[in-house]
This record gives sequence, structure tokens and C-alpha cells, in this order.
Amino acid sequence: MTRRLFASLAGVICALSLEGRAMAETPSTPIANAKVVRIAELEIDPAQLDKYTAAVKEEMDISVRTEPGVLAIYSVAEKDNPSKLRFFEIYADEAAYQAHIQSPHFRTYYETTKAMITSRKLIETTPVLLAAKP
Amino acid sequence: MTRRLFASLAGVICALSLEGRAMAETPSTPIANAKVVRIAELEIDPAQLDKYTAAVKEEMDISVRTEPGVLAIYSVAEKDNPSKLRFFEIYADEAAYQAHIQSPHFRTYYETTKAMITSRKLIETTPVLLAAKP
Repeated sequence: MTRRLFASLAGVICALSLEGRAMAETPSTPIANAKVVRIAELEIDPAQLDKYTAAVKEEMDISVRTEPGVLAIYSVAEKDNPSKLRFFEIYADEAAYQAHIQSPHFRTYYETTKAMITSRKLIETTPVLLAAKP
Repeated sequence: MTRRLFASLAGVICALSLEGRAMAETPSTPIANAKVVRIAELEIDPAQLDKYTAAVKEEMDISVRTEPGVLAIYSVAEKDNPSKLRFFEIYADEAAYQAHIQSPHFRTYYETTKAMITSRKLIETTPVLLAAKP
């Protein structure tokens, strides 16, 4: 009986402390804090740049329109070197990013364009501030 | 009389051709096409990173809240090197960017932080597609 009571008490204490830990790990503004930003720097074979651009624009458009967690994908070319593209991508959280790279439209884009890309640099980031007009 | 008529005709022709030129330079979707995106890569003295971050966050917040043409300023740190910051900035047009860098809050930020920045790379870009949730 004493042993059972002790086991029950231990279980309650354990549950309480786990809950406390979970609460402590929950940020006060979860949505803002969870955002994932990824940067990509791609160099495209100049001879295939138009074809690449058409494919990536289609993929970006579908992703932002249909995936709830893909908040923004921006693509720009360096003014002095139009075949060097830079991407700035904002996801609601890590799960949204993982869902995105496993989506059928992303897989199609990836397979279609991989031979057009001559260099690819992916940069993981920690957001400092994402300030945008509402 | 003939000379006056000639002068008037020349004036009309000149006005018409100027108008034609202005129209030809107006893109079909002026707002979307005029957007200016600038990228900055800054390296901050690690000893002054907290101070720099506070100053730049304040400046970004004021800019996006009070300047109609500053659409977004995003700032992220490289995950592997927190003192390397990257900025992705979207302006409504070139005039908005020029107004921004002459604003009192930008000038204050610039003067306050210039000694904290150990390297600065500014990249002009040509937007390919800026896709974001409405």
C-alpha cells in the first residue's frame, strides 16, 4: 500500500514537472518565434536561365498559394549577374518547411531543374526581425 | 506668321513625342514591376552585437511602420555565425528607397552603428518573383 501510494505520488510529481517543462519551453508568441527563414544562392546555366525561371516561378506560385505554412518565397537575380539567383523563404515553422520539400510540386521542380543549376548554396538562419507591412 | 505656326507645330510635336515616351516607359502593372529589392550582408563586431541588434531592430520597426514605401525589411543571422547578418529589403519603388536612406531614423541608425560594422556588402537585384501570402 505504501509502495503503491509512493508510485502514484511519483507519477503525479513526474507529470507535473513534465508539464512545467513543456510550459517553460512554449514561447509567449509561438507563431512569430517559430518562423523558419532559409536563404538559397543558386547559379543557373545561362543557356537554360529562361527555362529555369519559368519552372521556379511556377513552383513558388503553387507553394505560396496552396501550402498554408509557406508564408513567402522571394526570388531575385543579382543585377550584375542575372544567372545568379537568390531566394529568401519564410515558413511558419520547421514542419511547414519539411512538408514543402516533400510536396509533389517541389519534387517535380527539383527533378526538372537539377541539371540547370551549376551551383547551389543553402544557408540556415536565425531570424533577428521580420518586419513587414500588414 | 509662318515662323510662329512652325514654332507652335514644333511645340505640339515635341509634347506628343514626350507623352509617347512617358507612356512607353509606364509598365502595364506599375506597382508590381517597380518594386526594388536590396540585399545587404553585414558582419558585426561580436562584442557589440547586442547593441547593434537593438539599434537595427528599432530602425527597421520605425521604417516599416512610418514609411509608406518601405514594404518589408527582414533581418536574419547565419545559424553558424550569429555575427553575420543578412538583410532582405523590399521597397515600393526607387523613390521609396531614396527617401528611406535620407530619413532621420536611418541617418541616426547609420551614424550610431557604423563603428560596430566590420564589413558591409550591398547587392542590387532584379526581382524574379516576390510571392507572399496576402
